[in-house]
Amino acid sequence: MSKRVGVVLSGCGVYDGSEIQEAVSILIALDKQGAQTICMAPDIPQRGVVNHHLRSEDAQPRNVLVESARIARGKIRDIASVKVDDLDALIFPGGFGAAKNLSSFASEGAACKVETGVARLLLAMHAAKKPIGLACIAPALAAAVFGPKGLHPLITIGTDPGTANTLEAMGAKHHNASPTDVCIDAANKIVTTPCYMTANGPWEVFQGAQKLVEEVLKLA
Amino acid sequence: MSKRVGVVLSGCGVYDGSEIQEAVSILIALDKQGAQTICMAPDIPQRGVVNHHLRSEDAQPRNVLVESARIARGKIRDIASVKVDDLDALIFPGGFGAAKNLSSFASEGAACKVETGVARLLLAMHAAKKPIGLACIAPALAAAVFGPKGLHPLITIGTDPGTANTLEAMGAKHHNASPTDVCIDAANKIVTTPCYMTANGPWEVFQGAQKLVEEVLKLA
Repeated sequence: MSKRVGVVLSGCGVYDGSEIQEAVSILIALDKQGAQTICMAPDIPQRGVVNHHLRSEDAQPRNVLVESARIARGKIRDIASVKVDDLDALIFPGGFGAAKNLSSFASEGAACKVETGVARLLLAMHAAKKPIGLACIAPALAAAVFGPKGLHPLITIGTDPGTANTLEAMGAKHHNASPTDVCIDAANKIVTTPCYMTANGPWEVFQGAQKLVEEVLKLA
Repeated sequence: MSKRVGVVLSGCGVYDGSEIQEAVSILIALDKQGAQTICMAPDIPQRGVVNHHLRSEDAQPRNVLVESARIARGKIRDIASVKVDDLDALIFPGGFGAAKNLSSFASEGAACKVETGVARLLLAMHAAKKPIGLACIAPALAAAVFGPKGLHPLITIGTDPGTANTLEAMGAKHHNASPTDVCIDAANKIVTTPCYMTANGPWEVFQGAQKLVEEVLKLA
């Protein structure tokens, strides 16, 4: 039986959604390993739309689920409808969408809130002892959900001391890592990798994403 | 000296732009091979915007260059400004954007027109004996530009007989290929691969894209 792995998207584009190269790297690595991928996203408005050519704000609103469907070629579910029994593992690519749409980490830091459906599924996966992978800035979601529960998730967002200190203030433990490394918290079954927090290009991103997928599947 | 490879994007999403997984696979493979990637797109309105979740038309217009910038993380050029001397090779991922925005192949078939900047760069690359790679439905661009010149480009779009017949009516020669194969026209320095015209998932797409990149770089 192939493992069923949820991939939680947050829009389509590094500055207001999922980092596209990270998301696709995870999809390629999952398919290479023979896993069954279930893409999902919350059905909510984006917190802002960024013109990625000019780096300016765009006034026209977009929806996180609708834009995420571009990466998933239309095959996507509303995360609110996904049950823990549907999944053997859950993986989050990065991009500002993880810190703007899946949570308010980008604007509120250590005091951030996590989107209801995302927080529910993270807690349910952990309670069921099913593994969770998070890339780039997405480990902030683990800090926000598991930190206040006293679970002390061990995570990496690369080497940025400011972000690392914020995550530790939220109850996480931070481990510095290079873009092709992963950080494994065996007790909490949480695997993290820096991707574009430190990567120089798509090949480093792919290697880190591939290791993340391999380690998550070993725990599933 | 690393090879400078242009990647021509046509928006961001399979149904109205570049097929995202194909585009990213090409970017990963180029970076893996040590090539320098120069992403570009025409600065024109999209011919339609598709809601990829509902598969419905969206009335709000989008721009091809601006949406393509999402895949390129903002580092992108207007194809009208790119000179053949800037490049050692040129690669096109697929997606409906190649047949809607870079050309009118989706609506006009054998009678299609190719966007001005795209046609100019394709002709200039060929004249300079620099290689061109095209994935998925993008080989239709080579048929439309080189077919009427009597250059008889040898290309693949997989195995679909209707599309293959149309391309042959445009002056191309079609060769059936599986998703992890490439078709090489050594005389014209054109390399093609089917990607999602026949692929079952992102790992097959990546393998075909990687072969395409390797063969294009051999000719550069």
